[in-house]
Amino acid sequence: MSKRVFLASKRAVVSYAPEPETGRLRAWLAPGGTGNVVAEQAGYLDVAWIVSADSDADHQAALEHPDGMRIELPSGRGVRLHQLRHDRDTFRIVQDFFTAELMWAGNNYGWDRWTRPSFGAETRAAWERFGEFTEDFAGELLRRSEGEPDPVFLVHDYQLVRVPQRLRAERPDAPILLFVHIPWPAADYWRILPKMMRTGVLEGMLAADVIGFFARRWSDNFLACVADLLPDAEVDAAAGTVRRGGHVTKVCTQPLGYSPETLHRRDARLPEGVAEWAGDRPLVVHSGRTDPIKNGERAVRAFVAAVEANERLRGTRMLVRMNPNRLYVEANAEYQRRVERAVAEANAALGAGTIRVHCDNDVGHTFGCFERADLLMFNSTVDGQNLSVFEAPLVNERDADVVLSELAGAAEILGPVCRTVNPFDLVEQGEAIAAGLLAGPGERAEAARRRRETARPWTLEAWVTAQLESLGVR
Amino acid sequence: MSKRVFLASKRAVVSYAPEPETGRLRAWLAPGGTGNVVAEQAGYLDVAWIVSADSDADHQAALEHPDGMRIELPSGRGVRLHQLRHDRDTFRIVQDFFTAELMWAGNNYGWDRWTRPSFGAETRAAWERFGEFTEDFAGELLRRSEGEPDPVFLVHDYQLVRVPQRLRAERPDAPILLFVHIPWPAADYWRILPKMMRTGVLEGMLAADVIGFFARRWSDNFLACVADLLPDAEVDAAAGTVRRGGHVTKVCTQPLGYSPETLHRRDARLPEGVAEWAGDRPLVVHSGRTDPIKNGERAVRAFVAAVEANERLRGTRMLVRMNPNRLYVEANAEYQRRVERAVAEANAALGAGTIRVHCDNDVGHTFGCFERADLLMFNSTVDGQNLSVFEAPLVNERDADVVLSELAGAAEILGPVCRTVNPFDLVEQGEAIAAGLLAGPGERAEAARRRRETARPWTLEAWVTAQLESLGVR
Repeated sequence: MSKRVFLASKRAVVSYAPEPETGRLRAWLAPGGTGNVVAEQAGYLDVAWIVSADSDADHQAALEHPDGMRIELPSGRGVRLHQLRHDRDTFRIVQDFFTAELMWAGNNYGWDRWTRPSFGAETRAAWERFGEFTEDFAGELLRRSEGEPDPVFLVHDYQLVRVPQRLRAERPDAPILLFVHIPWPAADYWRILPKMMRTGVLEGMLAADVIGFFARRWSDNFLACVADLLPDAEVDAAAGTVRRGGHVTKVCTQPLGYSPETLHRRDARLPEGVAEWAGDRPLVVHSGRTDPIKNGERAVRAFVAAVEANERLRGTRMLVRMNPNRLYVEANAEYQRRVERAVAEANAALGAGTIRVHCDNDVGHTFGCFERADLLMFNSTVDGQNLSVFEAPLVNERDADVVLSELAGAAEILGPVCRTVNPFDLVEQGEAIAAGLLAGPGERAEAARRRRETARPWTLEAWVTAQLESLGVR
Repeated sequence: MSKRVFLASKRAVVSYAPEPETGRLRAWLAPGGTGNVVAEQAGYLDVAWIVSADSDADHQAALEHPDGMRIELPSGRGVRLHQLRHDRDTFRIVQDFFTAELMWAGNNYGWDRWTRPSFGAETRAAWERFGEFTEDFAGELLRRSEGEPDPVFLVHDYQLVRVPQRLRAERPDAPILLFVHIPWPAADYWRILPKMMRTGVLEGMLAADVIGFFARRWSDNFLACVADLLPDAEVDAAAGTVRRGGHVTKVCTQPLGYSPETLHRRDARLPEGVAEWAGDRPLVVHSGRTDPIKNGERAVRAFVAAVEANERLRGTRMLVRMNPNRLYVEANAEYQRRVERAVAEANAALGAGTIRVHCDNDVGHTFGCFERADLLMFNSTVDGQNLSVFEAPLVNERDADVVLSELAGAAEILGPVCRTVNPFDLVEQGEAIAAGLLAGPGERAEAARRRRETARPWTLEAWVTAQLESLGVR
């Protein structure tokens, strides 16, 4: 590929330590999460990667490295990272409120409408800040690609949805891809947002040549939103295209499963005490961020229903593994409390110590739990994709059955080889847990084999290739 | 029309008094609401009308009149009413929980998904009861139409969605229409329901020849749900048809605006004290049932925003008119409390007595408020149609401006002649209130004239004709 690629995403969780000789900061990436997938992609392509500076150390590093900084990825590859220094208030409002709280609920079906949300003056003010934040990203991408005759722009995730429009204004012919890692909601739900926001975001996105989603359901929802709100757009739902003002945007489904590199280099260990507590008993593992979409509370209640209905499941244990995530968002903090309450109630019913919660950000622990599980439960209320559904069966060592939400993007590929469930139906989930645990060893082994086979092709490399091919630059 | 029509709907609010000569119960219908619209339709067609018995008096009347009972409608017309005596527990569970709480939230977007709903064993049990309730209705319709060579069945509203399937099994050639008076949600939302329920309801409905909705948005959503969940159904979204198992169902948009008879016979009076309190000041009227979709809390907050932003609106008053409705449903009781809290806070900010809540079931009071208003606010979070949006402008005497939710079915007809708003956006609603109140008298008079002209054709008679024509029986 001869063209130079410029990659942008909001997040890179960078850790620092001063170099002993120079005292300057040396940087590396923390493993795990979507940010890391984008990072691996960056390393794979050897591109310029532009992200927001967040911590004080980020800001210091950005000042010390005006031309970007070489950092090492967990895979061992390197990448040149450019950290953007936004106005601190702007970044705080955009990260903590506008994206993590408002847009997150807006794309992940978090509002009931009868009581929430209500948009007042503070939403208007945050929308203005989001404009500045967008401008920072677009400005940096344009500056870094100045003088480059044929730049390619890969813009990643929902926080940057308005960036394509600003790039397009200055680079009318450059290939621009926008990838949205989270779900896209139905048209009636997207309409909840204030008018300037719901149409402003769609218009910002449609300046891209390609808009990628992990699942067909999100692509279809996006096209329905455009048809609902932009009367001047010509939507061809079957072809997945939108024509507007002479420009055509392709809306593509580009699934990602896992990074083979990440699996290969995993440092899998059970959290302390778990091996002794679980012993050789059957173990159900529920894993996900502290995020209400991960639906741990209903998983616990369904587990209780399963055990209470099946004498043979007495003695089964359940581990609720959580990665602490954005606990400054009230919905997340409240989710964690709800899960803990449900676990306390379940243990009161089933016997103390039947269910354990384990909470930390050590990816090695997550992989350790994936390996040990006898049943894996991913019952998200909704989920853009959920890479864990691919990773866990590929590393699991006990032919664990998988209970999977029909509303996780991953279900479009892995649904046929998992027990798909309605994430709101405790009875159905309880029955799936019981069936999974009570299946015979032969059936389990065969199902696990088919699951691995189905998951295996969906690598990071295939995903990056799909992005570039859809842009016609490869 | 030579064919005999059999009409079914869940609700008829019947009042009784003993006849002085015989001591037997004489019955009449309370005015107002959807039930009444169906009643007027029944009177207009002179049909057999089958409804659930509810009160003790209903049951007694049903026992006394095994061949149905002639009752008088508010219009002066008569109708033969057959009251169905369900098992009392079945009726209670179906009315209080399954339809008023669960199905209502399921069609009116009342769940956030992160915390609610969760379906357990009690939902399964209620679904069984709903099957019995359906069986009662289908059985009664079939018994009453026995021996009738060419019966026509009009089945009204969401509580009876499974009836068409049972009728079809016994009457393969009879024209059957099902009319849903409430919204139909997007496919992603409908999927929240347990599998047997979400597909069971769709299958029950598709046995009808025609399924009617008040608005195109609900028809489209229904077709999308069928395409999402029934792989054996062939959906033609443009034609509005579903072909399944050799049977074709037409999905139609059949708007209803108002009953001219009801408007003509209205006994409009302001509730006590309102005339003195309002004086000659500009008056904003928000009107609706005690139902969270009516969105009174946000209306109050938007009114506060409008007054605080516009010195010229000081002195304006607001009346929140509520009809007490199903307050045994916790969501409704909580809604009423939230509105009252918002009003108390608003009065603390704007001055005591600026906003008043008035709550009773006297339709004459509702019409009195419609006549007196200077601005009418119908900002439902979602609404099947909302007949008040047609009625109020037709009786208003002060060229009242109308602020209308874009998610009320009525907006498809009246949106262009109202100030349509996003019901979640307080800023936009506040601006609409201010603009409506501050418009000049000439502009207001002209807008009111156009609004009446647009509303006028949508009569009950036109609606009934549309139903029968779509069935091909007229």
